Amino acid sequence: MKFKRLPRHIGIIPDGNRRWATNNGLEAQEGYQQGLAPGLLLYEACLTLGIPELTFYGFTQDNAKRPDKQKRAFQQACVDAVKMLSGRDAALLVLGDHDSSVFPPELLRYTTRQEFGKGLMRINFLVNYGWQWDLTEWARGWEGSVKRVTNPLRGIASADIPRIDLVIRWGGRRRLSGFLPLQAIYSDFYVVDDMWPDFRPEHFYAALDWYQNQDITLGG
Amino acid sequence: MKFKRLPRHIGIIPDGNRRWATNNGLEAQEGYQQGLAPGLLLYEACLTLGIPELTFYGFTQDNAKRPDKQKRAFQQACVDAVKMLSGRDAALLVLGDHDSSVFPPELLRYTTRQEFGKGLMRINFLVNYGWQWDLTEWARGWEGSVKRVTNPLRGIASADIPRIDLVIRWGGRRRLSGFLPLQAIYSDFYVVDDMWPDFRPEHFYAALDWYQNQDITLGG
Repeated sequence: MKFKRLPRHIGIIPDGNRRWATNNGLEAQEGYQQGLAPGLLLYEACLTLGIPELTFYGFTQDNAKRPDKQKRAFQQACVDAVKMLSGRDAALLVLGDHDSSVFPPELLRYTTRQEFGKGLMRINFLVNYGWQWDLTEWARGWEGSVKRVTNPLRGIASADIPRIDLVIRWGGRRRLSGFLPLQAIYSDFYVVDDMWPDFRPEHFYAALDWYQNQDITLGG
Repeated sequence: MKFKRLPRHIGIIPDGNRRWATNNGLEAQEGYQQGLAPGLLLYEACLTLGIPELTFYGFTQDNAKRPDKQKRAFQQACVDAVKMLSGRDAALLVLGDHDSSVFPPELLRYTTRQEFGKGLMRINFLVNYGWQWDLTEWARGWEGSVKRVTNPLRGIASADIPRIDLVIRWGGRRRLSGFLPLQAIYSDFYVVDDMWPDFRPEHFYAALDWYQNQDITLGG
């Protein structure tokens, strides 16, 4: 595949794991492990194309209110996904509220960026992330200060994650669901109706094909 | 039309005015006046259905960097739109940076909410709005403070505008372009390929028909 214009940073919302499981006669939580192989395929496709940064929506503080069986399953899937990619060329960051028992302790070391292999690609995982947590961090930075904020992106908890060019969501829903609200301000938003465990590289190429024909204006 | 579930607050991104104009052999800025009648039709449709709140994306601080002819045209269209609706039943608010010469002085009186007629519907216009301006207002509120932020929505400049259930964008682009980032966090996002001046009520009913079948989870 050859594209005339590629996104530099892609956000991935891998939704539909539970619906996939129940559609396939499994219990809801059994869907999460099915999301690992798609993640690896997507990583490989991005590496081949030379896309420099990828951010995965792992799970949120809101998701953590779900039943325990599901919670344990998506926590484990996040741990497995990060471990899987740490064997590859990647500069990995796990971002989320890690002052909480919901945050898997195995991922603590990734809360500062870790380089593996040639560190070719920046990969971010949001784990126990919350948009309110992210932005509140920013306001906390202003306590007692009299400086003026010139760029809100600079002070938020996710400040190390830059603007996202393209968000791709699997599972048919057309909403951001709290995914990095400030980085997604100008993102082009592409929705795949198939569930994430049914990922096929063609979904991804269709998104890139659509993206290359979008007109970037940033409001200008 | 009858719907089993209606949004309580709809955001409208009336995009495509300039493209409509050039597609129709006019100068780009001549498209904006064509957006007035669609706005009134949409208001009438919402009133009939009993939708309690509507927010229009007028123009942004970024838009204001465009050529003067265009700037004057979209400023005038916003003034005309607000005046048109002030003759109806509506509680009108115009929100944006009004400490700027780009903000039309005719709209200053609407920067606090004004009730007209029976004040049945809340209608918000974003005029010289900027997401950075909106959120920075929030951070400014924290200067010198030692309180904790519990709800970021409470302190932003747009705090009087609640969560948006459904965002409808005309003109085919699938992005939010800075439209109330915190209120749009969980919004369902519907895109109409036709340009805003080509608005037909059927677009709106198709969006509502799609919306009523979406599953609201708010991340839970």
